[in-house]
Amino acid sequence: MQGRKNLRTQVAIIGSGPSGLLLGQLLTEAGVDNVILDRVSKNYILGRVRAGVLEEGTVGLLDEAKAGARLHAEGLPHDGFSLAFDGRDHRIDLHELTGRRVTVYGQTEVTRDLMQRREACGSLSIYDAADVAPHDVDGGSPFVTYTKDGIGHRIDCDFIAGCDGFHGTSRRALPEGAVRSFEKVYPFGWLGLLADVAPVSNELIYANHPRGFALCSMRSATRSRYYIQCPLDAKIEDWSDDRFWDELRRRLPAHHAEALTTAPSFEKSIAPLRSFVTEPMRFGRLFLVGDAAHIVPPTGAKGLNLAASDVHYLFGGLLEHYREGSDSGIDAYSQTALTRVWKAVRFSWWMTTMMHRFPDTSDFDQKIQEAELDYLTHSRAASMVLAENYVGLPF
Amino acid sequence: MQGRKNLRTQVAIIGSGPSGLLLGQLLTEAGVDNVILDRVSKNYILGRVRAGVLEEGTVGLLDEAKAGARLHAEGLPHDGFSLAFDGRDHRIDLHELTGRRVTVYGQTEVTRDLMQRREACGSLSIYDAADVAPHDVDGGSPFVTYTKDGIGHRIDCDFIAGCDGFHGTSRRALPEGAVRSFEKVYPFGWLGLLADVAPVSNELIYANHPRGFALCSMRSATRSRYYIQCPLDAKIEDWSDDRFWDELRRRLPAHHAEALTTAPSFEKSIAPLRSFVTEPMRFGRLFLVGDAAHIVPPTGAKGLNLAASDVHYLFGGLLEHYREGSDSGIDAYSQTALTRVWKAVRFSWWMTTMMHRFPDTSDFDQKIQEAELDYLTHSRAASMVLAENYVGLPF
Repeated sequence: MQGRKNLRTQVAIIGSGPSGLLLGQLLTEAGVDNVILDRVSKNYILGRVRAGVLEEGTVGLLDEAKAGARLHAEGLPHDGFSLAFDGRDHRIDLHELTGRRVTVYGQTEVTRDLMQRREACGSLSIYDAADVAPHDVDGGSPFVTYTKDGIGHRIDCDFIAGCDGFHGTSRRALPEGAVRSFEKVYPFGWLGLLADVAPVSNELIYANHPRGFALCSMRSATRSRYYIQCPLDAKIEDWSDDRFWDELRRRLPAHHAEALTTAPSFEKSIAPLRSFVTEPMRFGRLFLVGDAAHIVPPTGAKGLNLAASDVHYLFGGLLEHYREGSDSGIDAYSQTALTRVWKAVRFSWWMTTMMHRFPDTSDFDQKIQEAELDYLTHSRAASMVLAENYVGLPF
Repeated sequence: MQGRKNLRTQVAIIGSGPSGLLLGQLLTEAGVDNVILDRVSKNYILGRVRAGVLEEGTVGLLDEAKAGARLHAEGLPHDGFSLAFDGRDHRIDLHELTGRRVTVYGQTEVTRDLMQRREACGSLSIYDAADVAPHDVDGGSPFVTYTKDGIGHRIDCDFIAGCDGFHGTSRRALPEGAVRSFEKVYPFGWLGLLADVAPVSNELIYANHPRGFALCSMRSATRSRYYIQCPLDAKIEDWSDDRFWDELRRRLPAHHAEALTTAPSFEKSIAPLRSFVTEPMRFGRLFLVGDAAHIVPPTGAKGLNLAASDVHYLFGGLLEHYREGSDSGIDAYSQTALTRVWKAVRFSWWMTTMMHRFPDTSDFDQKIQEAELDYLTHSRAASMVLAENYVGLPF
């Protein structure tokens, strides 16, 4: 390893996805120095395809980070969505039930906006940083090391934010005995497809069908994102576009199936579904944020929003530290964040359980699922429970 | 078999529990002739110990049957109940959330009031009727046979109501291929105790504790009914009163445990928990009512109320038949009753799942249960979902 070059910052952020970027920009706007490190390149990050249904709280944080302008111009405000089962649509009127709405805006666009804002501010992001590792997080002088272009580097800091996702290095920096993990792996995956075609409906459709779950979603008025539940051993090469479109049509109410416009896909992939939580979310001066600490299945679109709520709590705690000299927000971070995390994890698990067909489910459990959908769409209180979780519980 | 004696009535009712008696008295009040048959004696029926938390709809039907006077005088109106977990009470204010309340009044008392009213009306009840059997339910001339004091009898009728419970003869009269059954057996039971002692609280307490579920209930201001979750293989002889009281105390928040007054029990029993539904609830001229068609676990107190809702729908259909010559109510009975049945079965399953500790549950599922209780007691919409089901969904 050649000559080491040292940096000093207040908060070192590992991971340049939406949570790392959001935290970084909030800190920058508040005058707290920070550096973002990512093991891959900017273009690689911008090439990831991710959903985006944003809660108002998330939009508020993006505004606070001064990265909300394009989102407000191009994002699609949605006042409701549809639950489809038994051949019919049942609209959940989010706005009427809760006074709030969600905004459909791709996560990739959120990332792009935050990156642009960060560049405009001149805050430092280091891409292609190999072997990123947090050190001495339990002591008073934490630092992060990484290698770039064959040269070893070290960043000394006050705090480290682990925003590097489920497969990142941050969570693994916690000593094994200090951590408890909770996990559920679902017995199916989502086969997703992107196509430049107008969406079948201007609101999302979540469909429960005897053949399995389907979701009609979109990125814009001309770009559609569709998903169908598939077995865990499904292979992407077995799913031609035609087969996908046929299967999607079968799972939708007839009027949607007939209205569906198809086009060649330009992305198609299979993702497994998993719930995962690690506790605590803080160890010494290292804080886990977003996917580094928890994963939810995509049903209900909570992943990005939950990362944003972690950022909200951590940012508040860091501000309190730097502005008021109090560590009470930092000390409360793990428990405060986890209380909301578990509610969203529960909601995502519940919506996944209610909307999918489980292999080997009992006849009784299947009837319970149908009774729940029937109750949910006929009770205002039950519709409100779905709606208030979907638009996002308060921070 | 000696000389056969034949009777003729409009509706033959098998079973002299609350559902058979309620249906009989509603029909009698409406001028529809009916006969009730039961295989056991009146005193045996009145010796059964059963809970009693009555929905307003059930109370309304008892009033309509002219059997509500004592219930209104002696029943305890309850405006709420407590969910206890994590060492604390969380009150569910039923009346504030729904505008409705429940009435605590023992099922045995309901049965007694209905029997007295029936005797006052001079309607026929035949007890100790052996080998009761419905016949020709699929044809135009159904009849019921039974033996009493060694003599065979036959009652010809227009319709047969099977109100004889889960172990009764009525459900088994449906041809096997015509019926689908749905069942869930829970991996625990309830150990219950009755004692003449003032209840620990004037409202019910449903407690979720790491050692298992507990329920503090009552029959009156001086008679308490307590339950604790127990393993399926628990033996009543292993549970002295002292052991029961000690275990109950451990599962309650401290202020309740300290306030608990004990006394020698005069009844103690173990009941398994089960969900069961049979479909359809009608075959030809035979109608299944209450426990003959469905069983719910006692959590949430839906059993008797669900029987009453079946009676409501069947009574309406029979009145339409006799008064208007229309069979549309009768023809809709099974589907209409089952729609409400499944909602109550779902609610009972959900409340059972949320309040009990399941052996072999995963750490993830245990955290989900805790997150659900946390959410439920902090969200008005979620509290309302619990409350509206507890006070009873509309007929």
